[in-house]
Amino acid sequence: MHNSITVAVDAMGGDNAPEEIIKGAVLAVQDEKDIKVILTGDQDIIQKELVKYTYDKERIIVVHAPEVITNNEAPVLAIRRKKNSSIVVALNLVKQKEADAFVSAGSTGAVLAGGQLLVGRIKGVERPPLAPLIPTLNGVSLLVDCGANVDARASHLVQFAKMGSIYMENVLGIPNPKVAIVNIGAEEEKGNQLVKETFPLLKACSDINFIGSIEAREIPYGGADVIVCEAFVGNVILKLYEGLGAALINKIKSGLMSTTKSKLGALLCKPALKETLKDFDASKYGGAPLLGLNGLVVKTHGNAKSTEVRNSILQCVTFTKQHINDKIMEHLKNNE
Amino acid sequence: MHNSITVAVDAMGGDNAPEEIIKGAVLAVQDEKDIKVILTGDQDIIQKELVKYTYDKERIIVVHAPEVITNNEAPVLAIRRKKNSSIVVALNLVKQKEADAFVSAGSTGAVLAGGQLLVGRIKGVERPPLAPLIPTLNGVSLLVDCGANVDARASHLVQFAKMGSIYMENVLGIPNPKVAIVNIGAEEEKGNQLVKETFPLLKACSDINFIGSIEAREIPYGGADVIVCEAFVGNVILKLYEGLGAALINKIKSGLMSTTKSKLGALLCKPALKETLKDFDASKYGGAPLLGLNGLVVKTHGNAKSTEVRNSILQCVTFTKQHINDKIMEHLKNNE
Repeated sequence: MHNSITVAVDAMGGDNAPEEIIKGAVLAVQDEKDIKVILTGDQDIIQKELVKYTYDKERIIVVHAPEVITNNEAPVLAIRRKKNSSIVVALNLVKQKEADAFVSAGSTGAVLAGGQLLVGRIKGVERPPLAPLIPTLNGVSLLVDCGANVDARASHLVQFAKMGSIYMENVLGIPNPKVAIVNIGAEEEKGNQLVKETFPLLKACSDINFIGSIEAREIPYGGADVIVCEAFVGNVILKLYEGLGAALINKIKSGLMSTTKSKLGALLCKPALKETLKDFDASKYGGAPLLGLNGLVVKTHGNAKSTEVRNSILQCVTFTKQHINDKIMEHLKNNE
Repeated sequence: MHNSITVAVDAMGGDNAPEEIIKGAVLAVQDEKDIKVILTGDQDIIQKELVKYTYDKERIIVVHAPEVITNNEAPVLAIRRKKNSSIVVALNLVKQKEADAFVSAGSTGAVLAGGQLLVGRIKGVERPPLAPLIPTLNGVSLLVDCGANVDARASHLVQFAKMGSIYMENVLGIPNPKVAIVNIGAEEEKGNQLVKETFPLLKACSDINFIGSIEAREIPYGGADVIVCEAFVGNVILKLYEGLGAALINKIKSGLMSTTKSKLGALLCKPALKETLKDFDASKYGGAPLLGLNGLVVKTHGNAKSTEVRNSILQCVTFTKQHINDKIMEHLKNNE
């Protein structure tokens, strides 16, 4: 394998496409030498954006893909029908090993479905989970699964725990990451049917550092490095995290603007406050990888701006250089 | 029925029992004329606290209950065995119609189990859900179910929606409350098996104002008055709400204290900020009623202080005066 990482980027996906996506790609190649980007999408539109920037022309290539898959389309059907869409063309580049990774801010459903249908699962992986990093008072935690497999089974959750553990250890550099399962009480006998089934299986895993249940209240305090849950619950956690954070900051802003005295105070606090809240900004951490595929597929926020797109692309470098997929493969083999 | 409402209060339950519970009871009778409180628990301990306060002696009665159910006990077993516990004695007062309502900050499991076993369900109610109010940018929303019935069925969720709707209309005075189901996407075809089954049933209900799915991201913005979900998901939402709110405020405080300039600013902002954030304080809204029982059972936070206990007791007045249970009964009868 070459030393440089090639990332296929869906130039047409997301609320701010193509401008912010293309800008993010340019920022990524400007910041990191070992990266090449292949932008997929309408080539005329992409070229019109690219001429705005100065960058190493050899490291951004455009591959024409005239079709676009929207959020309103049924994912599997869209992947099958729109062979010339920016998502399908990019995923095929990963499949054919012409790209190491794929980043998209487009339809989550289409990225998940396409990842599985086109790139395919690593042998032994039952369900590839979507695993974003969420900010905590301690740093970050990996939330796995946050939306790929609703109504998952206990055996799936066990694999999520293992893959998440490998990710946190190798991409984030956390030794022996703490793994916990989301539950509605701390005791082993608490929970719904799925959690009750999964808990003893996780407890029996010698290759992860399972610390037991985590209540949702403890998640923002960074109680665990890998937070395992079924996709419906994970999606609720991720979205509430984003929504509540934004709502509270909104509320605080209006509080700061409510009196003349507080307005003056706000002026003095603003820089320090901004700096602190940056740590709690999910977009800082790039996109969510779909773990367990034969290649790296990263879903970034639909409303991602250039910085988040850049971060999502750069994240692919660590993932690929650390051979996460080889480690997952090796690990599942050892456990057979 | 007499005009005055009698509320049995578990004096021994919660992290701050008995001091804060008893203080809360005293505050409640001081603030509201039409209320009587029966404190259940160790009478010597309770009397020792009560002598600290000046209040209408006829409106706080003590009923001796020497046993205490802890959070670590298996709920159903504890309810069956500890007949002289503060929870069982209080619930029996409700069962025997000597009290209209019961408030406890003690073991959630024991309150839920005891409510069902001793007070019993209203005829026609399949599962009584726990329904707290959560703060939003718009006011409050009722989250139903937040922990009583994990692995519920679609028919249960439909009843949650109806009971929640009656509660919001009559206790909060919101005409034609908007009802939504927690989902991982806005479209009808999204969701897990339970949501997919429940959605068309809710859509077919002519007696509620069903507005469709709500994503967790929208909950803090007050997108719906009644938020329906299965208990595991509801519990995650409630606890993440509390945990993330506290963590963010913690983060903001440390940001405000990080520089000399920001410290000065913080001093100026503090009163306005405090006032604004009060609206987002869950404890302001008292406890969570267990809907659908033959009497009112209210679970308040384990860490409740006197103000929250007082609010939880006062909340029983509206509930009882508005004849919520009669309305639920009437409603379910009409729907048979």
